[in-house]
Amino acid sequence: MTLLETLAPLLGPGALLTDPVDMAPWVRDWTGRYVSTPLAVARPATTAQVSAVVAACHATGTPVVPVSGHTGLNGGASAMGGLVLSLDRLCAIRDIDAAARTATVEAGVILSRLHDAAADHDLIFPLTFGARGSAMIGGVLSTNAGGSNVLRYGNTRDLVLGLTAVMADGRVMDLSGRLHKDNSGLNLKHLLIGAEGSLGIITAATVKLFQRPRAYATAMVAAASLPAALTLLHRMQDATGGAVEAFEYMPATYIARHLAVIAGAKAPFAHPHDVNILIEVGATAPRDATPLADGSLPVVALLQDTLAQMMDEGLVLDAVVAQTEAQRRTMWARREAAAEVMFAMQPFVDTDVALALPDVATFMAEAKRRLLILDPAATDIAVAHLGDGNVHYTACPSRDDPALIAAIREMVEDVVQDLSGSFSAEHGIGLSKLGSMTRRKDPVALDAMRAIKAALDPHNILNPGKTIPQ
Amino acid sequence: MTLLETLAPLLGPGALLTDPVDMAPWVRDWTGRYVSTPLAVARPATTAQVSAVVAACHATGTPVVPVSGHTGLNGGASAMGGLVLSLDRLCAIRDIDAAARTATVEAGVILSRLHDAAADHDLIFPLTFGARGSAMIGGVLSTNAGGSNVLRYGNTRDLVLGLTAVMADGRVMDLSGRLHKDNSGLNLKHLLIGAEGSLGIITAATVKLFQRPRAYATAMVAAASLPAALTLLHRMQDATGGAVEAFEYMPATYIARHLAVIAGAKAPFAHPHDVNILIEVGATAPRDATPLADGSLPVVALLQDTLAQMMDEGLVLDAVVAQTEAQRRTMWARREAAAEVMFAMQPFVDTDVALALPDVATFMAEAKRRLLILDPAATDIAVAHLGDGNVHYTACPSRDDPALIAAIREMVEDVVQDLSGSFSAEHGIGLSKLGSMTRRKDPVALDAMRAIKAALDPHNILNPGKTIPQ
Repeated sequence: MTLLETLAPLLGPGALLTDPVDMAPWVRDWTGRYVSTPLAVARPATTAQVSAVVAACHATGTPVVPVSGHTGLNGGASAMGGLVLSLDRLCAIRDIDAAARTATVEAGVILSRLHDAAADHDLIFPLTFGARGSAMIGGVLSTNAGGSNVLRYGNTRDLVLGLTAVMADGRVMDLSGRLHKDNSGLNLKHLLIGAEGSLGIITAATVKLFQRPRAYATAMVAAASLPAALTLLHRMQDATGGAVEAFEYMPATYIARHLAVIAGAKAPFAHPHDVNILIEVGATAPRDATPLADGSLPVVALLQDTLAQMMDEGLVLDAVVAQTEAQRRTMWARREAAAEVMFAMQPFVDTDVALALPDVATFMAEAKRRLLILDPAATDIAVAHLGDGNVHYTACPSRDDPALIAAIREMVEDVVQDLSGSFSAEHGIGLSKLGSMTRRKDPVALDAMRAIKAALDPHNILNPGKTIPQ
Repeated sequence: MTLLETLAPLLGPGALLTDPVDMAPWVRDWTGRYVSTPLAVARPATTAQVSAVVAACHATGTPVVPVSGHTGLNGGASAMGGLVLSLDRLCAIRDIDAAARTATVEAGVILSRLHDAAADHDLIFPLTFGARGSAMIGGVLSTNAGGSNVLRYGNTRDLVLGLTAVMADGRVMDLSGRLHKDNSGLNLKHLLIGAEGSLGIITAATVKLFQRPRAYATAMVAAASLPAALTLLHRMQDATGGAVEAFEYMPATYIARHLAVIAGAKAPFAHPHDVNILIEVGATAPRDATPLADGSLPVVALLQDTLAQMMDEGLVLDAVVAQTEAQRRTMWARREAAAEVMFAMQPFVDTDVALALPDVATFMAEAKRRLLILDPAATDIAVAHLGDGNVHYTACPSRDDPALIAAIREMVEDVVQDLSGSFSAEHGIGLSKLGSMTRRKDPVALDAMRAIKAALDPHNILNPGKTIPQ
């Protein structure tokens, strides 16, 4: 009996796709860079079915590529001849416990559905990013997704209390639960989160929910410099007890490109500035969100006072505080257009680097300096989760020359490595950064990853050829 | 050449101890339960020396037991014939970056020294517990230590940005750095933290520092019930934007034993109550810590208002808010006497369990019910980091009967398992909980741990016979 003959009855009617027309949604990802060639697409509906499918693949040595929302940027869900195991039918929100502030969800739940479900209880699942309407929990966990609210709430791994995963031999590993402390042996939860399906397939998880902020204070700020911006971040963190939810940096080049590319875009300030910051503070305390006698909100007053003080000190050059939800939305739209703004530049070399916060300014200057040595006619543009030290730096070379593009990528990674940064902050490795892993990751760490992979997946069937370079 | 002949010149004069008198400090731990029998004690002073020692042990198949402050409760530092590798001479605080709010410290730095060094910059390293004057960073990381401030700042693993470790073959793995995001492959940092030296020996780490609270609001509260206590926790978290640093539960039995055992102890309230809570809120914002016209602090007023409201609702029965630092110290002294209070009971069966927050009340009632079935004359006592669902439940059987003690331990673990809790919240496994691991941990997870251990330490030399049951 072939593998597909084994799988069909396991999955039931219509859940094993082999016709190219049926498989089309799993073939092309939204970046357009990675075309999948699946052997077939299996769509199990339960963890038990995932287990049975993986066990059958284990027995036959067939590669299994877990796919959920298919919104990754690095080709991590590319099939390359393997069986696509789509998690989209494991889509139950099993439980929301408002008192304990937890949600238990399956891997195929779309992120924005979880947002909505939490909102019904006046709670939030804080992790969010542009692809929230398509990305699913399985991929969110497998890539340890980041986004704009990491500053306050942490990366995905910080939000996960427990999970269930199917291991390479098909056995189900039960790390479920909703415990805030658990020191029972090696931490396998953190090993599976961010492993991009290379060690096990996460089928369900329990995540933390948080109180929904009652109000926001949001502003566009022109800081005098990046260090001055960090001063603003620290002052607002201290003033609010750590309630800064987002601190996003857009240099002048980004603002200019945004104005050029996006129809109807408006400049944030009357005059261009170098260091444009979108800051947002979430007010969870009633006293911060209860209007004062003049109708203003205390959390907004706090931000305004801090900005006024910093203008007096020359650390802030200009600032606009959102007075309405529409103004707030406009500020966020400017930031969330990043993918569109970047993709409008051709050719481009996009990156996703992490630096210690004080090193961001050095990185920006040094990358630009070296870029112009490689290609005097090149430009660059960036957008950054500055509060996390996470810069999406994009170089735009003057010609579409593969050797030049490779040299630029190498140059950016050199600058990052000199500053003890990371070449992958939040997007992960997948296929596209395997070379960076080989060149940049500590060789002892690489050997440890290879040893763990071989130990947990001896037949190398789980998303093989990705994440960990051979 | 024997191993010791190889090691002596590597380490230099006085750094390889073989005389029983010299080794005495490493032989007995403070619990008195675990007597070490070291082959020798090596005291390297640098990561390079640790590397050389481990490489020599790897070559000869000699077990290496890393030891730092030796304050663990589960025998994790017991030598059992192996070479004790003491990290006490790796004691440099290499760097404190006040702007980036990070500290880079070696494994032998005593926790309270790091507290003091951070305080010099008006910052805190928030992790703290009773043994802070002896415990060292290496052990803190290797056990993923918890303590009283986890509620606000997280467990140890949440506070670590980067680390350096010596692996089983002696190679140095460089996971150093001070990045808030890093998705470059499998997360080996989280695998090493809490691994109790079984996968590698952590020699240095970079940790997060935080602003020092400008003031505290601290109170002893008699809640009407455990659910009422959780209502208090949530209301204060919401009112302060998550600034509750400690939420410690002491049942009536604990208060009574504390009064009986500790000289000069005072009752928290005029009348005994069942649910006694120590709550502490840290005010980092100037507006919370700037005295009002009447001299009171806003953060204290916030706590008082919440308590007054809850008294009106019948959810709080009594409350005392600390008016002076001395009163605050007295409240904390009651909680910090837990080890003394417990050890005064003989015999006793101590535990360290984690539960989902809403399950703590069920656990307490059910454990007591089943205890009295096993031993009608038994008593129990507990103290809990209630905000984390972490209960140190201690049963006091009426006779010192090993079979009864084993049955009680089993019973507590049964109750915990029925509630999907953990038998090890913050103390780890070491030697004493190997049996619990075998009986209670998911078998697929156990197999994964064994496979990882064999992959990373094929000669089984790193702290063998602990943490992961064979």
